Amino acid sequence: MTTSANMICSSNVSREEVLQQFQKVQQETDKLCHPLKIEDYMLQTSPEVSPPKWHLAHMTWFYETYLLLPFLENYQSLYLEHRYLFNDHYIQAGKKFSSAHQSLLSRPTIEDISHYRQYVHQHMVQLIETADEQSWQEINFRLLMGIHHEYQHQELFLADLKYSFYLNPFYPVYREDLASSPKRQAPLIHWLEYSSGLDNIGFSGEGFAFDNECPQHEVYVNFFCLASRLVTNAEYLEFMETGGYERSELWLSDGWEMITKHHYNRPLYWEKIEGQWHYMTFKGIQPINMGEPVSHISYYEASAFASWAGKRLPTEVEWELAARDLIIAGNFKEQDLLHPAVAKDNEDLLQMYGDVWEWTRSPYMPYPGHHTPDTPFGEYNTKFMTNQMVLRGGACLTSIETIRSSFRNFKYLHERKSFSGFRLAEDI
Amino acid sequence: MTTSANMICSSNVSREEVLQQFQKVQQETDKLCHPLKIEDYMLQTSPEVSPPKWHLAHMTWFYETYLLLPFLENYQSLYLEHRYLFNDHYIQAGKKFSSAHQSLLSRPTIEDISHYRQYVHQHMVQLIETADEQSWQEINFRLLMGIHHEYQHQELFLADLKYSFYLNPFYPVYREDLASSPKRQAPLIHWLEYSSGLDNIGFSGEGFAFDNECPQHEVYVNFFCLASRLVTNAEYLEFMETGGYERSELWLSDGWEMITKHHYNRPLYWEKIEGQWHYMTFKGIQPINMGEPVSHISYYEASAFASWAGKRLPTEVEWELAARDLIIAGNFKEQDLLHPAVAKDNEDLLQMYGDVWEWTRSPYMPYPGHHTPDTPFGEYNTKFMTNQMVLRGGACLTSIETIRSSFRNFKYLHERKSFSGFRLAEDI
Amino acid sequence: MTTSANMICSSNVSREEVLQQFQKVQQETDKLCHPLKIEDYMLQTSPEVSPPKWHLAHMTWFYETYLLLPFLENYQSLYLEHRYLFNDHYIQAGKKFSSAHQSLLSRPTIEDISHYRQYVHQHMVQLIETADEQSWQEINFRLLMGIHHEYQHQELFLADLKYSFYLNPFYPVYREDLASSPKRQAPLIHWLEYSSGLDNIGFSGEGFAFDNECPQHEVYVNFFCLASRLVTNAEYLEFMETGGYERSELWLSDGWEMITKHHYNRPLYWEKIEGQWHYMTFKGIQPINMGEPVSHISYYEASAFASWAGKRLPTEVEWELAARDLIIAGNFKEQDLLHPAVAKDNEDLLQMYGDVWEWTRSPYMPYPGHHTPDTPFGEYNTKFMTNQMVLRGGACLTSIETIRSSFRNFKYLHERKSFSGFRLAEDI
Amino acid sequence: MTTSANMICSSNVSREEVLQQFQKVQQETDKLCHPLKIEDYMLQTSPEVSPPKWHLAHMTWFYETYLLLPFLENYQSLYLEHRYLFNDHYIQAGKKFSSAHQSLLSRPTIEDISHYRQYVHQHMVQLIETADEQSWQEINFRLLMGIHHEYQHQELFLADLKYSFYLNPFYPVYREDLASSPKRQAPLIHWLEYSSGLDNIGFSGEGFAFDNECPQHEVYVNFFCLASRLVTNAEYLEFMETGGYERSELWLSDGWEMITKHHYNRPLYWEKIEGQWHYMTFKGIQPINMGEPVSHISYYEASAFASWAGKRLPTEVEWELAARDLIIAGNFKEQDLLHPAVAKDNEDLLQMYGDVWEWTRSPYMPYPGHHTPDTPFGEYNTKFMTNQMVLRGGACLTSIETIRSSFRNFKYLHERKSFSGFRLAEDI
Repeated sequence: MTTSANMICSSNVSREEVLQQFQKVQQETDKLCHPLKIEDYMLQTSPEVSPPKWHLAHMTWFYETYLLLPFLENYQSLYLEHRYLFNDHYIQAGKKFSSAHQSLLSRPTIEDISHYRQYVHQHMVQLIETADEQSWQEINFRLLMGIHHEYQHQELFLADLKYSFYLNPFYPVYREDLASSPKRQAPLIHWLEYSSGLDNIGFSGEGFAFDNECPQHEVYVNFFCLASRLVTNAEYLEFMETGGYERSELWLSDGWEMITKHHYNRPLYWEKIEGQWHYMTFKGIQPINMGEPVSHISYYEASAFASWAGKRLPTEVEWELAARDLIIAGNFKEQDLLHPAVAKDNEDLLQMYGDVWEWTRSPYMPYPGHHTPDTPFGEYNTKFMTNQMVLRGGACLTSIETIRSSFRNFKYLHERKSFSGFRLAEDI
Repeated sequence: MTTSANMICSSNVSREEVLQQFQKVQQETDKLCHPLKIEDYMLQTSPEVSPPKWHLAHMTWFYETYLLLPFLENYQSLYLEHRYLFNDHYIQAGKKFSSAHQSLLSRPTIEDISHYRQYVHQHMVQLIETADEQSWQEINFRLLMGIHHEYQHQELFLADLKYSFYLNPFYPVYREDLASSPKRQAPLIHWLEYSSGLDNIGFSGEGFAFDNECPQHEVYVNFFCLASRLVTNAEYLEFMETGGYERSELWLSDGWEMITKHHYNRPLYWEKIEGQWHYMTFKGIQPINMGEPVSHISYYEASAFASWAGKRLPTEVEWELAARDLIIAGNFKEQDLLHPAVAKDNEDLLQMYGDVWEWTRSPYMPYPGHHTPDTPFGEYNTKFMTNQMVLRGGACLTSIETIRSSFRNFKYLHERKSFSGFRLAEDI
Repeated sequence: MTTSANMICSSNVSREEVLQQFQKVQQETDKLCHPLKIEDYMLQTSPEVSPPKWHLAHMTWFYETYLLLPFLENYQSLYLEHRYLFNDHYIQAGKKFSSAHQSLLSRPTIEDISHYRQYVHQHMVQLIETADEQSWQEINFRLLMGIHHEYQHQELFLADLKYSFYLNPFYPVYREDLASSPKRQAPLIHWLEYSSGLDNIGFSGEGFAFDNECPQHEVYVNFFCLASRLVTNAEYLEFMETGGYERSELWLSDGWEMITKHHYNRPLYWEKIEGQWHYMTFKGIQPINMGEPVSHISYYEASAFASWAGKRLPTEVEWELAARDLIIAGNFKEQDLLHPAVAKDNEDLLQMYGDVWEWTRSPYMPYPGHHTPDTPFGEYNTKFMTNQMVLRGGACLTSIETIRSSFRNFKYLHERKSFSGFRLAEDI
Repeated sequence: MTTSANMICSSNVSREEVLQQFQKVQQETDKLCHPLKIEDYMLQTSPEVSPPKWHLAHMTWFYETYLLLPFLENYQSLYLEHRYLFNDHYIQAGKKFSSAHQSLLSRPTIEDISHYRQYVHQHMVQLIETADEQSWQEINFRLLMGIHHEYQHQELFLADLKYSFYLNPFYPVYREDLASSPKRQAPLIHWLEYSSGLDNIGFSGEGFAFDNECPQHEVYVNFFCLASRLVTNAEYLEFMETGGYERSELWLSDGWEMITKHHYNRPLYWEKIEGQWHYMTFKGIQPINMGEPVSHISYYEASAFASWAGKRLPTEVEWELAARDLIIAGNFKEQDLLHPAVAKDNEDLLQMYGDVWEWTRSPYMPYPGHHTPDTPFGEYNTKFMTNQMVLRGGACLTSIETIRSSFRNFKYLHERKSFSGFRLAEDI
């Protein structure tokens, strides 16, 4: 339920452009809701999952809290007393309801929430069109934050929904009309070599970025090799079938404890049905396409696979140096597959963007010289920078609008609900 | 979520009468649903609570399982594969889903469940009208069971809903149109004396009863006194205000552990708002009517109050001997208050029937000579006969159709979700 | 860790006799300690187990608290500040240490505790010899309580130690010198018939008894049959081998939950080693003697066995009526077997006293007309009278000095650490 | 209970020298035991604590397993079947007993363990004196590992004992004869500046080191400042008194969750007694010496203090660069204070070695180019490299024999049982 850190830099965009971006992201959110039944909006199948109803209310709460209430004169909140229900989990104080218990609330209903969204939307349009020039820079900044915040919650909305549908023994279908990725073998892996030396990573220049990507800074890297594509389901199955989950020497200590305690022996969403491996998808339960990248893998599983293969995971520095000159393209939400796809054999370095978030072996920590920005969102900047690892590159639920070579996602090492996979690296 | 034990005796009733009873109970269930929003059907606010959607499906599942599938030729179940979801918790084997996790399921939707109810209803009418004479006796018996089962689940449906609405910080109103019980003082308590000797309790004769009320059997009782009415909110408040919840010597050991662990210091549903005591009702949060019987009390709290008052709770034998000659009348579901009412001063012995279930100091055990009946429901007969206490007399959510002087309800000693209160007794 | 309820009646015994009783029980306690290593005194292998060190200190604390401090002039407590550590669990208030955490304390050491015991012992002798006549009656009463209290803790001391040694994978031997009960078949069961009618149970007359055995009172009983001996290990094994632990219909609901949750499938202390059933004893791990009564059985297991056998457990009324005319003799602690023995074929009704505590189907509740006695121990009288069942007859760890036909032991239904078994009954 | 990683490099030392080192470390272990009572050896006050008895057996088990059994001909283990009890927690497979439950075992007794230690000691001397030259290099390597392993367990032995004694409400004294550190003010902090650029950290050269310190590798650092001394109790108290534990904005998210869940509001071992702050020490409970470095602090607390002070923690690279040219000297175990001391004002950079382990903001990860060494200990090399932070410099329980500028200790972020404190850093 956590969103990434906060923007620090933004270019000047015209009001018309921003308005279009705002309307576009809101339409896309509406589109995500079309296949849902009212009952689906209530689903909270674990404390880490938020009900769809809450995601919707929360995205809207952001605009109301940081834009309408401070900047739109005479704005009256529609649900003043309910607003704290839509807050997210980091503001704990005084909450009677933690977000872990949203499913205990049937009211406000989804009809109420839809009304709230329309109401805020109309007032946001009004604000964008009428704000005075003096406030506009701040509004512009906050609005871009809100839009990126909504994109991130769209991804969480879908990932949470997949998990909730998976727990239903009848595996409901979210969208029957989704295309299937073609079943074919993945291309052979080859290894790309990178040389050692001083270099720079991190964001600089114009445009939108979060403060955790800043500042750009110098790093020293050794020689390294990177695999040309992601690890596939077929390769992961071989790891499973050769005892990967039983050989403690392959596992990090905390990872071994996790799989022992929870009896993990396969990726999240894999089920063997009548002798054949299936997985849960947004089209329901399906036979596994073995050439696709493996997904819904914890860091521990990625790390154990790498040990088994005699390799390692790349660092985020290595990933960024390899990725920064590539054109950003790939299997993102805009492709509307909502599922990873088999790598095409069209380039040297494949699948760096899209398909699945790639676990790196880099703990999520502030960059040297990083300082918490002085914004309403600034206080939360570094608070998640412990016990999490960095993931890079975006996934099939991520909007391409939000991805940069410097973008840092981060997850706890046990998390498997997002589309997380990995590629291998090695020292030279 | 547990229903009472099973019928052992039934009179012969005509098909027309039974059909009417069946249609009546189903209409009453429908009526309970009118005030609900679709989201409300999903609420499962604790593992002991069942979502409204499940109650509806389960009542219908009973008719399908015990009547249509065995007796109606060519009957096709509408949801053959979903049926195990509607089973109740005592059939554990092979269940992927415990009833404690029904809220994780958004599908089948309430629309699906309504369809299922109509479908089964129509086929039930057909069965009642067309069953051959040879099967009728068994069908009649099972149908009466199903009707009583539905009445009991109506009570659970409402009790669970009250709890779920209470957990919503905005205290939704179930029915704005409910009458309020008049605010007046309860009549003074006087003590009715009963003499010692051999007597009989338990069910005998014609009509419907559960096997746990049988057989009628001899008992020896000492002299005893019974309070003329139930303990009121005003009296309970005095217990609270004089340190009732802090004085360990008043409490049973397990009860003291319960209130210490959960920090209990008042009945379920009581909240102090701006210095005044309120409670949750089906009309939302309301100032407490102090003359009404106290309710939503665990056995431990009833017992501690009795110690504080220098009295004791009655046994179920004492209660039944006192009640058996009274006419069965009182504040039942048919009064449509859905809340206890202040006692009227119109008789010697007040509130024996209706208002609240009365805790007795009798553990729920089989009567001497009891044997498990040889019916499809028989196997569950005595399985709840440990660690529970008997409650008597019915409550404001109970249908008067289901109450007898010999009727035995039973609850774990910590339970507070049903309308449970108590009257005092003493030795002479 | 709970001891039984409190004495209500006592005969006059001379000071010499009481002094001898006191010295005898203390010597017996010392004798129990001889086989222990210092490390053994620290063992607390579950929250329900007390370390031997605590049992010793607690027995002594009783005499100091209820006799020396109030009655012996100028008595100075040796460990005034440590005394609360030796209190038992019902006095919770102000305790930094619950008795569930005694094993966290290495100091005071067992040497300190021994010193404390000697110190209190000497002062007790002084008190008995020098107390004035006026106080003697109260001292006599309290001293008898203390002696019975010490006998009960001797039984707990041994039962807790057996459990703690069992958890050591090397199964330490407590006493190598214990005799083994002869291996032979138990006599065939025959059924003794008892007629119906009004009768009396409970304690009356001279001598020591606890208040929970009082008052003697009238009861009505139906015809019943009682098995001539206890159920044996061989019979219990047959229950196990014919699926007793897998057939949910045999089990009480709470019992089925218990065995499912804890994966119980055999009595406590049974282990299959190289294909042969063994059990833990005070002589270490031993092959099971199949003719002995089964022991270390919860109420739920006894009840499931009775269902499987088509019988039931007796009520405590039935047990007492059958037992009251027998001479009290049997396999008690004084036989120094510390283990149940195969029944001899020398009487109609066998093993009513000694060997194992017999589960009855009677919930532990106050007798009609029972009132809490006004003594320093009185406040705890009825506080355990919920959620427990009555056991009768004493076991191989019980001193014969403490047993009467009216003696009521009580345990939670899941408990298995004491020597608890059962005999069957049935209606006629 | 975890020891650090494994040696990778060792110089050649003569047999006489190694024998002396071995005898010295074993004598020091014996000396640690002198103040203990037998009961103390049983203490396991949390699952993370090992009983003294286990530490002793485990240190000896190491020599037997890795040296005597493989290298000493005809060696017979004294406790062949008990040996798995002395194993440490990373060998999980097949264990009936986890090390978290050692306190459930009273046998083998401490007398047995002492016997085992002497037996192994004698055979070790024999091995050192008689091993052939061919095996000596491997024996030498393993023996150095064993000696360092024993030094680390001495530190754990004492840290665990302090925790166990703290839980005793009478705060036992471990050693009355320990000197107290003088009560005086700490010198003012000044800030030492370090310049940016490429540099090297990590171990190289001759002598003993663990593989996690290798290889030496290039790093790029920015300009930074380091505080001249550790943060003191007085400074930490100011943080507490100005609401440090109530201001969520100062805390990492996981840290805020920890202090909220456990109600932390002060360092481990601090207690306010009659209005004055005390802490637990090896001399029992004592008034706090405010000039000493604060200790028994989790990473989260160190990080929150740094936020409050507007600074940050140093990285391990920064620490090592600052420390590598200092002479290794300070308040180590050899000073026999067993407690941190107030900084003297004798140098620019104070307390880098000894007193307390210093939390760095560096996650514990493998160095670039690190490879798991191919030794019997190698398999465990990187398995702890997740979710832990690096600490540097050694503490008052650490032997100076074991410390290097490159030495990396590591702990979970919530841990407080070791002597852990911190110094501040900042960017320039």
